[in-house]
Amino acid sequence: MEGVANEAASLAGHWGLGKLIAFYDDNHISIDGSTAIAFTEDVLARYEALGWHTIWVQNGNTGYDDIRAAIKEAKEVKDKPTLIKVTTTIGYGSPNKASTHSVHGSALGSKEVEATRKNLSWAHEPFHVPDEVKRHWAHHLDEGASLEAEWNAKFAEYEKKYQHEAAELNSIISGKLPDGWDNALPKYTPESPADATRNLSQQCLNALAKVIPGFLGGSADLASSNMTLLKMFGDFQKDTPEERNIRFGVREHAMGAVCNGIAVHSPGLIPYCSTFFVFTDYMRAPIRLSALSESGVIFVMTHDSIGLGEDGPTHQPVEQLFSLRAMPGILMLRPADGTETSAAYRIAVINRKRPSILALSRQKLPQLEGTSVEGVAKGGYVISDNSSGNKPDLILISTGSELEIAEKAAGQLRKEGKSVRVVSLVCWELFEEQPEEYKESVLPSEVTSRISIEAGVTLGWEKYIGQKGKAIGIDRFGSSAPAGRIYKELGLTVENLIATAKSL
Amino acid sequence: MEGVANEAASLAGHWGLGKLIAFYDDNHISIDGSTAIAFTEDVLARYEALGWHTIWVQNGNTGYDDIRAAIKEAKEVKDKPTLIKVTTTIGYGSPNKASTHSVHGSALGSKEVEATRKNLSWAHEPFHVPDEVKRHWAHHLDEGASLEAEWNAKFAEYEKKYQHEAAELNSIISGKLPDGWDNALPKYTPESPADATRNLSQQCLNALAKVIPGFLGGSADLASSNMTLLKMFGDFQKDTPEERNIRFGVREHAMGAVCNGIAVHSPGLIPYCSTFFVFTDYMRAPIRLSALSESGVIFVMTHDSIGLGEDGPTHQPVEQLFSLRAMPGILMLRPADGTETSAAYRIAVINRKRPSILALSRQKLPQLEGTSVEGVAKGGYVISDNSSGNKPDLILISTGSELEIAEKAAGQLRKEGKSVRVVSLVCWELFEEQPEEYKESVLPSEVTSRISIEAGVTLGWEKYIGQKGKAIGIDRFGSSAPAGRIYKELGLTVENLIATAKSL
Repeated sequence: MEGVANEAASLAGHWGLGKLIAFYDDNHISIDGSTAIAFTEDVLARYEALGWHTIWVQNGNTGYDDIRAAIKEAKEVKDKPTLIKVTTTIGYGSPNKASTHSVHGSALGSKEVEATRKNLSWAHEPFHVPDEVKRHWAHHLDEGASLEAEWNAKFAEYEKKYQHEAAELNSIISGKLPDGWDNALPKYTPESPADATRNLSQQCLNALAKVIPGFLGGSADLASSNMTLLKMFGDFQKDTPEERNIRFGVREHAMGAVCNGIAVHSPGLIPYCSTFFVFTDYMRAPIRLSALSESGVIFVMTHDSIGLGEDGPTHQPVEQLFSLRAMPGILMLRPADGTETSAAYRIAVINRKRPSILALSRQKLPQLEGTSVEGVAKGGYVISDNSSGNKPDLILISTGSELEIAEKAAGQLRKEGKSVRVVSLVCWELFEEQPEEYKESVLPSEVTSRISIEAGVTLGWEKYIGQKGKAIGIDRFGSSAPAGRIYKELGLTVENLIATAKSL
Repeated sequence: MEGVANEAASLAGHWGLGKLIAFYDDNHISIDGSTAIAFTEDVLARYEALGWHTIWVQNGNTGYDDIRAAIKEAKEVKDKPTLIKVTTTIGYGSPNKASTHSVHGSALGSKEVEATRKNLSWAHEPFHVPDEVKRHWAHHLDEGASLEAEWNAKFAEYEKKYQHEAAELNSIISGKLPDGWDNALPKYTPESPADATRNLSQQCLNALAKVIPGFLGGSADLASSNMTLLKMFGDFQKDTPEERNIRFGVREHAMGAVCNGIAVHSPGLIPYCSTFFVFTDYMRAPIRLSALSESGVIFVMTHDSIGLGEDGPTHQPVEQLFSLRAMPGILMLRPADGTETSAAYRIAVINRKRPSILALSRQKLPQLEGTSVEGVAKGGYVISDNSSGNKPDLILISTGSELEIAEKAAGQLRKEGKSVRVVSLVCWELFEEQPEEYKESVLPSEVTSRISIEAGVTLGWEKYIGQKGKAIGIDRFGSSAPAGRIYKELGLTVENLIATAKSL
């Protein structure tokens, strides 16, 4: 019933995943009772429409030979995934609870267990595995060992003939990153041209794909907006599985789920996926599962604020940054320029047990003077300062596209004689992991004049600005207007930041 | 491609929505190019499997008669929804851009507009509507007026014959709530038995359905866990559209979307929908649209914390409260007992332009002494206090199931001579809307000894506890264990709260 199942099944059909065999336990019961109260579609016909081969086993309770035959048939179909619908009785064997939803979520209870054992003529003690069953399964041990030996011998031969390819495969299997992989990440200076971080991101993606054999991914039908195409590769399709640009279609939920699957398949596979930042709302469930299952997926989320402009409030994230900072087990990164974007990708690749989300701008941003790879690794750091003795008059804290505004305002305030520090808080989770001394060196508790500026809701910023500080942000939905206009209307400007500083 | 479309289409087929006619613009182009790169299923066959009637118009560019015939056929099919697949050329008429994805998101440009006009022999000025076209549409004015008059006459007759039913219909059309509707909400005293707020919620739902004719809703296959069944009504199904229990199946995203549709259909229809709180992750997009489109949907979200117990971290929300508090335009309510649950429903019904989310417990909670309907209406209020001069030694702030812990800890601390205030912050958004004097009377700025306790992430609590306060919460995923055990392991206990108070 869940939409994500249809998204994923549609992709599986499109890709012709012949090795995939899915069993559909057709027991007609869901938690609320008979499935007939909410689910009357023809499931096999739907899967056929999605390009699957389908088989129906009508007696799933005792039709063992039919099940075996279905599996055999499914294995023989190599150009399509197969759905085997197996009609069963839920709680089969229980004389009083079979076919009812009460066996879905509750234990049978000792009395009914007894009655079921009797009904099924099962005389053994609880948890006892009869010898006959043990013997039956034991032969899989030898079988497995011989299959492994066969594979190892084949691979040894392959390694001799194809050294380069074997090394690549080994790297994917082991997860060991090639030496010096991060030297491939682009470097920028303040003189590098202004650019959108989504474009800078594409430079990183292409650089990483060149040096990491298991680096692959794609977008949910927004590749040319998200800037996620790997230029030296073609599309991953049915007949070109060696290519690395995955075309997910408009299926954000399945995209996240597929990337989780890729990440847990092999430690050396590093999947990324992409859409507009606001559409993380469509894929919160797989992002959370990514965190829970420690899958190091890289979520490349562009158009990360009202700065995307005319598409308006449905496309403008305002609460997404905080809603994801609140999620345990992930890194939420919002880089401000080329140096920070490269640094964010470095963090994302290193963190193989923790997913990273990169929030990237649609609009052009200048290359800033004080940004650094080492700083980003600490989550928060000083990018400019004219104070002495770790005691500025004022601290401006910002992330991403608003860091430029903070820098400009600081420049003007310094001209007026103030000592002002600007802090980039690019990744709150990493900053929180730093030693207290470091945090204190960036945000000295003595300095209570603090202002944050970020194009999103302000709830949560109290953590860093304190009760005497002020937060400039957007505590409402956005609006449809060109980026410059809407920044101005909503007060995300150098002028407003300076006025706020003077009002403290 | 989006999963929610399949969820919704499956429900439409199940319900046999004969009035629904959907057009599928089959132009073979998506943003990333040809749909063939990601979408090769047989769409009409899929919709047939979902129980739809389907029609294919092969020439959607100029086949006007075919389109008319398809609509006529679709209207005649009254027991099924109809999908009309209309094969078209995207950018039809544009000599250089037709059939390309460049016409999806960008304007043609003046040169290509010129070429297109020429190609289509369209000689008129931009934005000019030729008289012939005006005349053609003008007859709809009379047609509409006569249809309206016909309906009004019919309704006047109906009103005479069926006074009661007509009044109900008028109430649904106008949105005027029956006088004294909120007297129906259950009342509780501290002596009322302890109960889970999900059970207390069911009492409210049933009380409201009795007095409000347009009150209806259901659950995503968790009705017996969410406690959302309206006992005096049957199931809303194909042949029983007068009933009010909607069976959404396991389709959270479509459930939210359907409820948005119900809410905007008539001001007097008040839809509620329900699942486990953690599964708001599956339906953030419709919740956000509910807020953006000012649809007063009531989201009944049970099993609202680690207190749900054994189902473990996949089912235990920790970041959801905060992630929804961050969303503009909604009310996030977390009531602590019967009085607060009734009061929360009162707020939810009154707010017809703002969706409400109710976070409700699976576990039993006692009826507290100081909770009140008036207090909940202000979002935050003092539920117990032994201080004088608005200057307690300590303020404990909490919500929902943890308010009991705060009350118990306060009781013990008071015995040791401390003056302690306990504040229920049941709805942050409503509290923020109160005048400064009121907020100051609840949380006097002079008192910096503050502790929050809530079974969720602590991010955001700095807003109310300040930098000298402490937040007790859960900054990690939960665990599978009985509720009592996991509360203890994660430090959500009276003992820990008292120890924290003493460490301030």
